Amino acid sequence: MTAPVDFTALGPIIDHEPRDAALFVQALTHGSTGQTPDYQRLEFLGDRVLGMVMADLLYARFPKAAEGLMSAFLNRLVSRESCAQIARNCNLGPLIRLGKQARDDGGTGSTNILGDVVEALIGALYLDGGINAARRFIERHWADKIDAISEAPRHPKSELQEWAAARNRKTPTYTMLGKSGPDHDLRFTVRVEIKGLGVAEATGSSKQEAETLAARQFLAEHTT
Amino acid sequence: MTAPVDFTALGPIIDHEPRDAALFVQALTHGSTGQTPDYQRLEFLGDRVLGMVMADLLYARFPKAAEGLMSAFLNRLVSRESCAQIARNCNLGPLIRLGKQARDDGGTGSTNILGDVVEALIGALYLDGGINAARRFIERHWADKIDAISEAPRHPKSELQEWAAARNRKTPTYTMLGKSGPDHDLRFTVRVEIKGLGVAEATGSSKQEAETLAARQFLAEHTT
Repeated sequence: MTAPVDFTALGPIIDHEPRDAALFVQALTHGSTGQTPDYQRLEFLGDRVLGMVMADLLYARFPKAAEGLMSAFLNRLVSRESCAQIARNCNLGPLIRLGKQARDDGGTGSTNILGDVVEALIGALYLDGGINAARRFIERHWADKIDAISEAPRHPKSELQEWAAARNRKTPTYTMLGKSGPDHDLRFTVRVEIKGLGVAEATGSSKQEAETLAARQFLAEHTT
Repeated sequence: MTAPVDFTALGPIIDHEPRDAALFVQALTHGSTGQTPDYQRLEFLGDRVLGMVMADLLYARFPKAAEGLMSAFLNRLVSRESCAQIARNCNLGPLIRLGKQARDDGGTGSTNILGDVVEALIGALYLDGGINAARRFIERHWADKIDAISEAPRHPKSELQEWAAARNRKTPTYTMLGKSGPDHDLRFTVRVEIKGLGVAEATGSSKQEAETLAARQFLAEHTT
């Protein structure tokens, strides 16, 4: 009873003529259908293909970047959220084969499932068309994200985390030092520390704001 | 003052004629030399190349294995310890270029450095000879480990961990339930649990023995 795969809609997404169509059916089949094989083995493979291609792209694109910064970029680019975003950009959700319950639960919009399916499709492309077919897919769908990563103004907390990673330091830790002021105007003071590199403090009207300000303060004091 | 790379000794290890010898010098250069570039960027790349090639090899080798089991195999095969073991097998240590202090501290025998350099060499092979040069290196040096992984009698605790991973469960947790007996003959009782799958208990003459017996007991009760 599971719907067949709409290869007409899939075509422009993968931009590849399947030799073994069954691989792409598998990549779009969630375990909830009860059908085997589901996408999990292809996702396992595609995850590593994506990691390698992205490492290669970043290596070439940032010839001076330290290993820590490239790792931070890579982790952001290949995160489940990034993969799911790409699935949403190309409207992959309706093509995913789910069991009735999973579909009723909104599975075609689930970040986990969407991200998994993108990786499984990369695995299928790799098996069906070799590393170059997988690479073309990744270059095409990730182009904007890669362009953006080195330019976008980043959230100070993300920027600080990457700054620490680029120096092979542990991730920054945020500690709440205290609250002050009347209930309707509470002020939160937070300290951020990167072991071995320094500390900074800031106060804001929420914990989140204080952390953001502390990160910005740290960057201001330690970078030019 | 850092020694040049002994390409005569490196030849049989990489089984590849370098087009760009500088890549292999870089792969063998530790940061302690003060020379740039050191191996870190190549290690970043090689780590992902190794992951992808290994995923591909496991995918083909174990056509029925669940994703969780393949992940457990992969993590074991590409661990720093595995990479370092391969470095030791081919006597890579003496070829690594270290600063004097790092050398005096035994850096050529360090598991971290040896493992890093194997990954960096894979990165250099990938850049110099493409995915096939890297793949040949991995297939040749990892052949015995891959053969062994599905056959070797494993430690019951490892086996149980992989069994749980193959079912996408959390890692088993071991809880000490108590000690009993006289001081010269203490008995330790331990419970192992895999959330959602079951529990087992066992008693032994040390914590480690009790855990091993509990894992074996769990496997006996839950597998055929």
